[in-house]
Amino acid sequence: MQDYGLTEIGRKARKASRILNTAGCLLKNKVLVQAALALEENQEHLMEANAKDVAAAEAAGMKHSLIDRLKLTPERIKGISEGLRQIASLEDPVGEVLSMKKRPNGLMIGQKRVPIGVVGIIYESRPNVTADAFGLCFKAGNAVILKGGSDALASNQAIVKVIGQVLEANGLPASCVQLVASADREAARQMMRLNQYIDVLIPRGGAGLIRSVVENSTVPVIETGTGNCHIYVDESADFAMALDIIENAKTQRTGVCNACESLVVHSVVAEKFLPLLAKRLSPKQVELRGDSRAAGAERSVLSASEEDWGTEYLDLILSIKTVDSLEEAISHINRYNTGHSECIVTENYANAQKFLDEVDAAAVYVNASTRFTDGFEFGFGAEIGISTQKLHARGPMGLEALTSTKYIIYGNGQVRP
Amino acid sequence: MQDYGLTEIGRKARKASRILNTAGCLLKNKVLVQAALALEENQEHLMEANAKDVAAAEAAGMKHSLIDRLKLTPERIKGISEGLRQIASLEDPVGEVLSMKKRPNGLMIGQKRVPIGVVGIIYESRPNVTADAFGLCFKAGNAVILKGGSDALASNQAIVKVIGQVLEANGLPASCVQLVASADREAARQMMRLNQYIDVLIPRGGAGLIRSVVENSTVPVIETGTGNCHIYVDESADFAMALDIIENAKTQRTGVCNACESLVVHSVVAEKFLPLLAKRLSPKQVELRGDSRAAGAERSVLSASEEDWGTEYLDLILSIKTVDSLEEAISHINRYNTGHSECIVTENYANAQKFLDEVDAAAVYVNASTRFTDGFEFGFGAEIGISTQKLHARGPMGLEALTSTKYIIYGNGQVRP
Repeated sequence: MQDYGLTEIGRKARKASRILNTAGCLLKNKVLVQAALALEENQEHLMEANAKDVAAAEAAGMKHSLIDRLKLTPERIKGISEGLRQIASLEDPVGEVLSMKKRPNGLMIGQKRVPIGVVGIIYESRPNVTADAFGLCFKAGNAVILKGGSDALASNQAIVKVIGQVLEANGLPASCVQLVASADREAARQMMRLNQYIDVLIPRGGAGLIRSVVENSTVPVIETGTGNCHIYVDESADFAMALDIIENAKTQRTGVCNACESLVVHSVVAEKFLPLLAKRLSPKQVELRGDSRAAGAERSVLSASEEDWGTEYLDLILSIKTVDSLEEAISHINRYNTGHSECIVTENYANAQKFLDEVDAAAVYVNASTRFTDGFEFGFGAEIGISTQKLHARGPMGLEALTSTKYIIYGNGQVRP
Repeated sequence: MQDYGLTEIGRKARKASRILNTAGCLLKNKVLVQAALALEENQEHLMEANAKDVAAAEAAGMKHSLIDRLKLTPERIKGISEGLRQIASLEDPVGEVLSMKKRPNGLMIGQKRVPIGVVGIIYESRPNVTADAFGLCFKAGNAVILKGGSDALASNQAIVKVIGQVLEANGLPASCVQLVASADREAARQMMRLNQYIDVLIPRGGAGLIRSVVENSTVPVIETGTGNCHIYVDESADFAMALDIIENAKTQRTGVCNACESLVVHSVVAEKFLPLLAKRLSPKQVELRGDSRAAGAERSVLSASEEDWGTEYLDLILSIKTVDSLEEAISHINRYNTGHSECIVTENYANAQKFLDEVDAAAVYVNASTRFTDGFEFGFGAEIGISTQKLHARGPMGLEALTSTKYIIYGNGQVRP
């Protein structure tokens, strides 16, 4: 088995994490602000490295939209730096004692927020994730091991090098952030089995990447991302509100996990509502695919197959399912959703509460666009991803999701009887 | 590949979990109390089933101590029932809204505690775990799939059958608790890959079982159990207190994960302290294995090998490492511990704080026995296990560890600009 140096990377990361564990907030913020400045000062150098990646991608015939995501421009570098400054301005989650109670035997037992330790991030082509993931992990006191897309390797190496210099200038090991340099899949697989050194692995990217990490990792994973999000238009919905919300959730940005992919509509209002919806969405060229009753209500609706109900289009396509009751809507959603974001549009109090209670998802909305599922919109000031699993963190993950806790116990000689 | 019916079990569990998701606290408590009574009323029947398991185990030549763990007696059945009644008396964690904030755009965003959904438990021979794990999962609103040791199969089936009848008598599906009947390893492996139906897998048992689940499961796992726990006797330790704490942590119960396995002692006090310790532990027949300085200080100390530092003896053996500083103690502990429970005995304020800050474990103690790491001792009223990982739950896990959260968002037509 080829050695990709992962054990050595892991060992160094664990060592760095021990130092970061006790690094004060002032030092961490200083590093973040200086790293932001250093990235701006090294703009030319970063763009040179990036130009190599872009040239290679063009030579390999990469799709234009992907090349665009890969590109670094002065504006984007400015954006990356602003991101780091913003992270510096956030409150440090580490060290907070969440609760402390005195037990009858006199023991004081408290629960304290601590860094996780070593975080691994596996992601695709955007080089901005490199600085962003470092910033969030670092602020929460964690060392981070990054494995970015091979297409962005030169760009990522340049970014990590600049940050490493700032870390060292501040007396911290450059290994607080390390990049796995190999593009080989076997290197990724070895990273996913580095239980001794990596405490959690967060994949950021498409459904294929996430599935591969969940399948192959023995390191605990936080599953992020895929969103087959529904909006249910209830019998009592305010049509104008429903149209606004669906248009926003479907078209404001299509390639994102919190975009709406499927409309569920009560059969009593389908005939009136669907023609209005088709009219509203037609300037945005949204393709509608529905069941037979939806097609009967609005002739521009194409025929949906079973596969459509489970598809995250990430495109200007909306599936439409007609239901005869709220119960049927909830059961359809719970069957086909990915546990991301779901919305009911209703004026009925009891139905709103029932939907909130019974729909199984990270974020359940009454009368608002699913597009709000986002760390910034939720007021966390940052986001490392959106968890669609139920352990540790669910929904948008800010700095707190990058921490763990430990119990601290103050005694004066207690022994167990 | 043989079909062990796991997909069907998973499907039923998911369906039951949808129903349990909205089951009220009064109904859940009623079921728990009735199940407790039903187990007592079926005492003869349970003991008959158990006798088959015991006879088979004896015929197979199982160790006496393991057969003892397997046995059901009237007292043990009473204990199991009392456990269920106690769970009924605990506060229901489900439904609590942990926080709710209004965003500038008027959205009310709250975080609500909800059941996890379907919990899988893989455990070894004790039939009491069957009722206990059901009780905790059920109270937290989860369906549970149990895979107990093959040695206890008849006992477990009898217990699950009694509980299933109580569930059905109360209008709930018996599939709120299901037992995987096959003892085949392949059945366990299939259970570990049932991501579609199982939200979390909790192994309860020895290090081998836990390692196998961590290695093979694609379902998220909460790692529990193994404890290579240290007590560090600092330069300034009160010797009498240190002796009490070490004796308690080492000998009060030896086969448990929160027992002390290793003593770390400051070289300045080793010569005085170790003879006192040897004298104190000699009536309990504790074997001492130490480094050369420890052996030099107390002649009954045998020679320890590198392997000893990493060993969870679960036996009347204590390893002894001599260090020249608090830093060396912390670094030794962080290198060899399993992240369970660690203690410093000291009268020095700064050293106590440093130890609490820098030792990486679920529970870090000053001047108290590590034996307190336990859900009951921590005041949770119950325990499903002790997590030694950093995600989701760390340390003793009570009912809250068996819940997740979801964001509930109240809007009035908000769309994202």
